[in-house]
Amino acid sequence: MKKIINDPQNVVEEMLEGIEAANPDVKYIENTGVIARRSKTGKVGVISGGGSGHEPMHAGYVGEGMLDAAVSGNVFASPDPEKILTGIKAADSGKGVLLIITNYSGDCMNFSMASELAEMEGIETASVVVRDDVSVKDSTISTGRRGIAGTILVHKIAGAAAAAGYPLEEVRRLAQKAADSVRTMGMAMSSCTLPAVGKPGFELADDETELGMGIHGEPGVQRVKLMTAKETAKVLLERILEDMGKIMPKFALMVNGLGGTPLMELYILNREAHIFLQNKGAALHETFVGNYITSLEMAGCSLTLMALDEELTSLMDAPCDTMAWKRRA
Amino acid sequence: MKKIINDPQNVVEEMLEGIEAANPDVKYIENTGVIARRSKTGKVGVISGGGSGHEPMHAGYVGEGMLDAAVSGNVFASPDPEKILTGIKAADSGKGVLLIITNYSGDCMNFSMASELAEMEGIETASVVVRDDVSVKDSTISTGRRGIAGTILVHKIAGAAAAAGYPLEEVRRLAQKAADSVRTMGMAMSSCTLPAVGKPGFELADDETELGMGIHGEPGVQRVKLMTAKETAKVLLERILEDMGKIMPKFALMVNGLGGTPLMELYILNREAHIFLQNKGAALHETFVGNYITSLEMAGCSLTLMALDEELTSLMDAPCDTMAWKRRA
Repeated sequence: MKKIINDPQNVVEEMLEGIEAANPDVKYIENTGVIARRSKTGKVGVISGGGSGHEPMHAGYVGEGMLDAAVSGNVFASPDPEKILTGIKAADSGKGVLLIITNYSGDCMNFSMASELAEMEGIETASVVVRDDVSVKDSTISTGRRGIAGTILVHKIAGAAAAAGYPLEEVRRLAQKAADSVRTMGMAMSSCTLPAVGKPGFELADDETELGMGIHGEPGVQRVKLMTAKETAKVLLERILEDMGKIMPKFALMVNGLGGTPLMELYILNREAHIFLQNKGAALHETFVGNYITSLEMAGCSLTLMALDEELTSLMDAPCDTMAWKRRA
Repeated sequence: MKKIINDPQNVVEEMLEGIEAANPDVKYIENTGVIARRSKTGKVGVISGGGSGHEPMHAGYVGEGMLDAAVSGNVFASPDPEKILTGIKAADSGKGVLLIITNYSGDCMNFSMASELAEMEGIETASVVVRDDVSVKDSTISTGRRGIAGTILVHKIAGAAAAAGYPLEEVRRLAQKAADSVRTMGMAMSSCTLPAVGKPGFELADDETELGMGIHGEPGVQRVKLMTAKETAKVLLERILEDMGKIMPKFALMVNGLGGTPLMELYILNREAHIFLQNKGAALHETFVGNYITSLEMAGCSLTLMALDEELTSLMDAPCDTMAWKRRA
């Protein structure tokens, strides 16, 4: 295992301290996995969280216009309810807190318990579960579809709604609308190595990729021969559009890398995605290309489409200022 | 070779079209390798360029407050003078153009020839050569030190100076000061595969890393056993500080990934860099962590320090809006 780490047991704690050191706008609450904004905001709080190893998600999205706190569990393992409760408290300014949950059994259970604990302490909460992965119906670690890259776009919409001063129920409604409007499908070309394990989680043959593989290496739908960028865009987007049922008037597109794929390839894939969508008559409002949600050093990608109506468009266009996503007013 | 591409011969052209599709503020001038801002700026132009495969450098830094154009050659190959001339013309608003050149023999020769061609067409030019890599004195492809991650910080300073409306000579002076104030050292843990070659350029043993390896895989100074994050920070920063000769009052730190190293590891390395610098009494004005200059999917990192006086600090703090680096006012 070749990694720039110290002790494999301490990677999450040391990473979070490294994030705090890099970003003066956030603080790390020691031993809790919680990265939170330094100052109280006076608005509805928005939090998310999950296993580590998907950076910059979620801690990289803490800041103005997105999340108020992010809770990191161990690598690929959900944070426990006590930690999530710490995150909820950090995000609370007395107006209630929205929990954005990716649909994995562990996250659903732990966020739900944390939400109950928070309510017992008098903090109002609401939740939205993201299930954007169209590749599988159920998976080894979720009932129903998994939440993947679409989650970042839900963070953006919810964060912008909260920053606009909307009350909790309205922030929840808009985040739910965002979650309902977003679809993702991915493809993996290599495995990744958990620091505490020390060897790759699975093997893929030299000429093989796995469609719909999960961001923890859990099984996808099909192993196929290596595809060109053009074929990759077609296979992933056709499945997404089929699931949406119709071409919506306007989309945001996210071309996401899983950590080990060079930007060069993501841009080539983006070119193919644009050509494919243009031929389908789909208009793009905005395109995001980069490593937004990763699986350590896994090679591969995902494509995400969010259908944007006027309401979602204006929230997507709102300014934000986080480590991993900045937008000027 | 597992890559999301179509034809290995077309990767640069298709990548640049993909960049144009992702960013409405830039245009790709077909068959020239030039990504340029869409609108003329009325200020001194700033351009850079070099071989492809180091994305987001340089094309990702085209935009307000940084570059006006970037010229991409083939993968790991300098663009020819005609292409650079196209970039100079695209960046020119009648106030002259600054060329930021990384110190590789090919880039130095081609940018110098392009500069002469531009002067013959009546465009005033000035140049700054970046030589921030402290690991080697000469290399297989440079006379003197190579230009690596520090180049991005020079782009930032020069771009801010041009945006402030300074004349060409003043923009050049400030860019030169930035280049003189920046030092970098890197470390590689794996090779990378050029699309047109199809196999890794070299091999490193499972427990081996190479100190000072170049961003094209050219030799560094020493192969060493795998180091911890703490040792890595110490080895790289000690060499940098030794070269600077004294601890400057204030630094910018860049923790750069070479493409295949997860953010988790870069943040852990950042933690160690901060601890090391704190113990040396060095104050950090700002920290950048991410993939700023890469070598395709190579695993590894570099650390960069730029000493900041008041003048450089205010230019570092100025707003910018590019794909790969945004800063709000």
